[in-house]
Amino acid sequence: MKLLHHPDRDAIMLPTVLHALSDPIRLQIVSQIHKDGEQACKKFEVSIAKSTFSQHVRTLREAGITHTRAVGTHRLLSLRTEDLNARFPGLLDAVLSSYESNDPNIQPT
Amino acid sequence: MKLLHHPDRDAIMLPTVLHALSDPIRLQIVSQIHKDGEQACKKFEVSIAKSTFSQHVRTLREAGITHTRAVGTHRLLSLRTEDLNARFPGLLDAVLSSYESNDPNIQPT
Repeated sequence: MKLLHHPDRDAIMLPTVLHALSDPIRLQIVSQIHKDGEQACKKFEVSIAKSTFSQHVRTLREAGITHTRAVGTHRLLSLRTEDLNARFPGLLDAVLSSYESNDPNIQPT
Repeated sequence: MKLLHHPDRDAIMLPTVLHALSDPIRLQIVSQIHKDGEQACKKFEVSIAKSTFSQHVRTLREAGITHTRAVGTHRLLSLRTEDLNARFPGLLDAVLSSYESNDPNIQPT
């Protein structure tokens, strides 16, 4: 399995993080990891094509929001909470609490 | 002058706000209003074409981040801080404090 690139903490940039979080499906993925902890890609309950899901996962990883860990044939996703909180204090919490307030206006349709 | 559309508070959506804030120039505009208060479009120190600037201002207004007020031939921009804090507590503060930390990685090039 090829080595997956993860940006160093100092290379995580605010506009890139905000862009990665600006998609309803990616917000759903991040929220699910936040609630349930590290989990396999196949565990996510999203009604999109596998290739589209993989692209979203890549966007989150390259932005520095998630860490992807390969175990056998599985890929496990976790949040880079410590790195994000160090770079942008309060940002991840504010985004997740807004998203998880279950306001129908911000949930994926 | 035509009436400019501003979304109602309840119509301000998290993905749209995050997307509007995911551009370095738009972050710069929002930060300048945050620091100096309501100000005329012509006061902004951005090295981009007027038409590009107008598009950024429109994106911020349509996302519900800024309010545009017409006074004579001028357009004055302010932040919808109260609306944003009501919808997404802590989000604007977290974004602005991260941006204004002057980290070279997140400033416009």
